[in-house]
Amino acid sequence: MRGAVMYAPGDVRLEDRPAPEIINPTDAVIKLAATCVCGSDLWDYRGINAVTQPTPMGHEYAGVVQEIGAEVSSVKPGQFVIGSFFASDGTCPNCRAGYESSCVHREFVGGCQAEAVRVPLADGTLVATPAQPGEGAIPSLLALSDVMGTGWWAAVAAEVTPGSVVAVVGDGAVGLCGVIAAREFGAGRIIVMSRHEPRQKLALEFGATDIVTERGDDGSAAIREMTEGVGADAVLECVGTPEAMQQALRSTRPGGNVGFVGVPHGVQVNGEELFYSHAGLRGGPAPVRRFLPDLIARVLDGRIDPGKVFDQTLPLAQVAEAYRAMDERRAIKVLLQP
Amino acid sequence: MRGAVMYAPGDVRLEDRPAPEIINPTDAVIKLAATCVCGSDLWDYRGINAVTQPTPMGHEYAGVVQEIGAEVSSVKPGQFVIGSFFASDGTCPNCRAGYESSCVHREFVGGCQAEAVRVPLADGTLVATPAQPGEGAIPSLLALSDVMGTGWWAAVAAEVTPGSVVAVVGDGAVGLCGVIAAREFGAGRIIVMSRHEPRQKLALEFGATDIVTERGDDGSAAIREMTEGVGADAVLECVGTPEAMQQALRSTRPGGNVGFVGVPHGVQVNGEELFYSHAGLRGGPAPVRRFLPDLIARVLDGRIDPGKVFDQTLPLAQVAEAYRAMDERRAIKVLLQP
Repeated sequence: MRGAVMYAPGDVRLEDRPAPEIINPTDAVIKLAATCVCGSDLWDYRGINAVTQPTPMGHEYAGVVQEIGAEVSSVKPGQFVIGSFFASDGTCPNCRAGYESSCVHREFVGGCQAEAVRVPLADGTLVATPAQPGEGAIPSLLALSDVMGTGWWAAVAAEVTPGSVVAVVGDGAVGLCGVIAAREFGAGRIIVMSRHEPRQKLALEFGATDIVTERGDDGSAAIREMTEGVGADAVLECVGTPEAMQQALRSTRPGGNVGFVGVPHGVQVNGEELFYSHAGLRGGPAPVRRFLPDLIARVLDGRIDPGKVFDQTLPLAQVAEAYRAMDERRAIKVLLQP
Repeated sequence: MRGAVMYAPGDVRLEDRPAPEIINPTDAVIKLAATCVCGSDLWDYRGINAVTQPTPMGHEYAGVVQEIGAEVSSVKPGQFVIGSFFASDGTCPNCRAGYESSCVHREFVGGCQAEAVRVPLADGTLVATPAQPGEGAIPSLLALSDVMGTGWWAAVAAEVTPGSVVAVVGDGAVGLCGVIAAREFGAGRIIVMSRHEPRQKLALEFGATDIVTERGDDGSAAIREMTEGVGADAVLECVGTPEAMQQALRSTRPGGNVGFVGVPHGVQVNGEELFYSHAGLRGGPAPVRRFLPDLIARVLDGRIDPGKVFDQTLPLAQVAEAYRAMDERRAIKVLLQP
């Protein structure tokens, strides 16, 4: 089986790897219909996260069940399924509370930039579509596996409500999916902080009402100017840098909320500043599994089309070029066809 | 008029100060029925906050309106009133959202350890009782001005709901009032972290169900052991130190909330740890004004008795001894009679 392996920053290779097999009776093996490169993969690609050994890459997946372990009962071979990047048992206290990505038995589903992948804890992780989806729905279904699930979680964590004023920090695929979520939640105004014209256009298509091009404290000041001087009700922090977090907190009104979903890199939140901001803060890896049934229905009904974040499609063989295109910001997000 | 002035750490003196007067037409002057020393006054007393000039002390007050400015309409001379330590206009966007302590015109009400005090923005700040309260209700009404309002806010910020498991970090007056709030909110279990027997006893009297004496990570581990391994639903952080914040975050289940109301001193929240904790975090100076009408009714109905946190009463003349008693933890909180 062919799959992508990162050897060092900037060095991603497609190579032959052992085909995935059932190891535990709760596993399933999925033949991938599509996979993709994540913004978070770039942390490794750029050398910000250390790459200490050759690492199979990718954690986003959608495809057809090939084989299941003896204890798997909720999906069967031949079904089209989507799952989260964290496998979850679906039964622990955290899963029952809707925080499947904090499952006490969670396992990261790695090595998805490949032809097939083993998914542990299949019953608690995978959700099948009612029927085989058409080719056109596959990008949007794949997006649910991470970016759309994560954008949705950002809006949930920031407590977006009908009529609220939402600001989105970050114009990557997750931020753009956050716009979709805010629109679906009935936000009254959706302000996207972006300097890149293709991303601005897609944000507006997804339902953004305003674009702010200023950054940092100028960006926060622009948001406050639009909101009676006090800030947005809900701010979606979709980057993970100290600057983005600070911009988000300073753009939030007292009593408002920041949902932060970019994996933090070097972020320290000053307690005193947070105190006097009166902002609420909640983040974490998206509990994608909680949202999957609802989001699959929205995709299949045509109500949301997050697959549009894939502005480039390449065969899996060109995975190295996919990383380069995203690293150089030539692409928002690249879909890979195994 | 006599009032307390801090000259330096450990040096609080009662001295003659000019009697407060109406300066702005929105002011009221209150003759104090009672005042007290706050845990946060000890930050100055202990030299942790700098005392750069002689500073009139105290920000907790309840008493009778003596005089009002020409534009004050909601209270009149002779009425018994309670107000927040932050004066608020009651009309700005933050006040309308219930965050009066972030009022865009907020003013700190200082110098309350005295016979009388000027309260700015009286209409947006003060709440009158329906009639003159009996002597016995005065400690509890005074407590609403800060500690009970702040404990209430901790429970609101931590989103305590009926049946939830609550942990309280800090056994000072605010933490103890947090226990009262959690009980009033219908918490199923209220775990107080305390090593001091008199405070443990008062916590149990206020409605605590469990006492944890371990601190730091041992304390968090004890909480997790009591909660299926995952942590409490709601944690009230009522101290403001890095250790207390860390203990609070590590005691919270994924999806749970920390309400932090101790003014942070040196607290930095690690973004990555907060991310993977899946905990929500909200704090800030309590919007006491939001809660006052409800809390006054609860005190006058006899449903809550936060005045019990005053385990010592002294004449204002002995204010220096009041600070010493609290600094040395001989008293939880000292009420001063002007």
